[in-house]
Amino acid sequence: MTVGLEEIRQAAERIAGKAVRTPLLEAPLLDQRLGCRVLVKAESLQLTGSFKFRGAYNRIAQLTRQELDRGVVAYSTGNHAQGVAAAARTAGTSAVIVVPNDIPAIKKRNTQSWGAELAYYQREVEDRVAIAAAIADERHAVIVPPFDDDRIIAGQGTIGLELVEQAGALGVTLDAVVIPCGGGGLSAGIATAVKALSPETRIYLVEPSNYDDTLRSMAAGDRIANDLGPGHGTTICDALTTEMPGELTFPINQRLADGVLAIDDDLVAEGLYAAFADLKLVLEPSGAIALAALVTGALGQEFDVSGKSIAIIGSGGNVDPLTYRDALQNGAARMSAR
Amino acid sequence: MTVGLEEIRQAAERIAGKAVRTPLLEAPLLDQRLGCRVLVKAESLQLTGSFKFRGAYNRIAQLTRQELDRGVVAYSTGNHAQGVAAAARTAGTSAVIVVPNDIPAIKKRNTQSWGAELAYYQREVEDRVAIAAAIADERHAVIVPPFDDDRIIAGQGTIGLELVEQAGALGVTLDAVVIPCGGGGLSAGIATAVKALSPETRIYLVEPSNYDDTLRSMAAGDRIANDLGPGHGTTICDALTTEMPGELTFPINQRLADGVLAIDDDLVAEGLYAAFADLKLVLEPSGAIALAALVTGALGQEFDVSGKSIAIIGSGGNVDPLTYRDALQNGAARMSAR
Repeated sequence: MTVGLEEIRQAAERIAGKAVRTPLLEAPLLDQRLGCRVLVKAESLQLTGSFKFRGAYNRIAQLTRQELDRGVVAYSTGNHAQGVAAAARTAGTSAVIVVPNDIPAIKKRNTQSWGAELAYYQREVEDRVAIAAAIADERHAVIVPPFDDDRIIAGQGTIGLELVEQAGALGVTLDAVVIPCGGGGLSAGIATAVKALSPETRIYLVEPSNYDDTLRSMAAGDRIANDLGPGHGTTICDALTTEMPGELTFPINQRLADGVLAIDDDLVAEGLYAAFADLKLVLEPSGAIALAALVTGALGQEFDVSGKSIAIIGSGGNVDPLTYRDALQNGAARMSAR
Repeated sequence: MTVGLEEIRQAAERIAGKAVRTPLLEAPLLDQRLGCRVLVKAESLQLTGSFKFRGAYNRIAQLTRQELDRGVVAYSTGNHAQGVAAAARTAGTSAVIVVPNDIPAIKKRNTQSWGAELAYYQREVEDRVAIAAAIADERHAVIVPPFDDDRIIAGQGTIGLELVEQAGALGVTLDAVVIPCGGGGLSAGIATAVKALSPETRIYLVEPSNYDDTLRSMAAGDRIANDLGPGHGTTICDALTTEMPGELTFPINQRLADGVLAIDDDLVAEGLYAAFADLKLVLEPSGAIALAALVTGALGQEFDVSGKSIAIIGSGGNVDPLTYRDALQNGAARMSAR
């Protein structure tokens, strides 16, 4: 085991006073409708609007003085970009972020406002990893990867520590934790912490139907990439469009996850609407996918939620107003038709 | 003085473990843009989605056993309705709520879900106070008024206590607190707590231009009602459409407030958008009006915010998706044009 509870506890000490200890929110009327107790870990209220700051800061805070002088490089669809930019500034170093040229406007502006330099690539044509590697090579800079790194995983795992502590303070033992899944760093970290502290708690990962690489990889017992060729569907969950599960994250998720769900964008919109109506939280589609799995009954097909205490990771809230508006409308219409 | 720090401290003890101790949120990029430190007290994350539960519970928890057996009656544009309904259920009593027949759907559904019985009135024609009085008379039930009551004011004042404590934990002395103003109960309670604990902190109230009764009453030195006759403008701030300042709340606000601002709905939309984009909070228009006064520069015309620490009360988040969608779009367009 390369990432364990001890590494996550060390990460928690590093980020203390830098990251937000995000609230664990409840919605009694939602509980009443669903017949279970729902606890939402609102990482949308984290610094930079997503959980990504935790892992990025835990990585960057472990750089040597010489490495800090050279700055860091990262590639990202958006949330990791902001997380690294803010972590770099917090740690007193600089950052170059390789971003797709269709990056949502709000994510672009915010990343620049955190003081990072941007380098653009074309999502379907160029290899962002190679571009980042070339920049890092030229500047002798360290790359901060989005998920496949022990220190990133440990940083995201601090959410699991807080979750178990916060639930415990309410007298709640969690029956399940439901986590959005892209590259798997968030779920690997949280699952490591939660299973160490509360072994009976079940862990469910949720990903978009059109990016169901983790589901298929679990079934195959080995990492399988998404087929991103012509005809491959898109998703509104722009933060979960990874190519395939991580080399480090996949074995952890394989060992610790009790199930993986893949759901359609229409269901995601219902989760986004529930966050709006029941919790007053702005969640981006990717950040609402775990809540969506619960409120639409998708989770219930795998696991009887009745009477249970279910923690939902609301992983981020960085979304353009137009995308939000459309998903809100769709979600509201679908929910009222139920 | 009928409501003082001691009454607010007693209220805080009563609501402890019943109400949410709402987080005080920060947004470093917003600070960077505005040149001040902004701390948002997120009462949208309070039980029932607004601050109203605090005052209602503080009132209902002081009923006698006999009074609890008879239930309570309230009249409300929506947020107080939900607050009373939830407080009644929490305290183990029943509630009848007199609501306008154009109550937003989400507020209606939620009030009923908290177990309250609804009685409807026509906003422009009937007298809701008289209707509530008749129901109360018939049932020998106690009326829980929306703002003009010492125990309601003390309950809302617990926000001020928490605010000063939470800011203190961050090492911050607040230069100003900005508060949405309808009947004035929220501001009277918060101002009482804040001025007692931090006398140098300035207090600003914000109301809709078309319901600027507090501003005009302050100027006149006496309570003046809104002219609600033909031709009177409307507002998207449905929770702030009170007829006139309260008999109890007005003298408190008169004594403790350093200024009153009245702003247009277009500016309110910018506040709603800033809550969405910078804080990831769903605020209803009425709940966003204090943030709006800051981000649009309206507050800056009264008070130099540069380098200051400013607390904003984000008082509620109960808003229909259609209203939200339109205000979000308007606010986003206006902010990007700045």
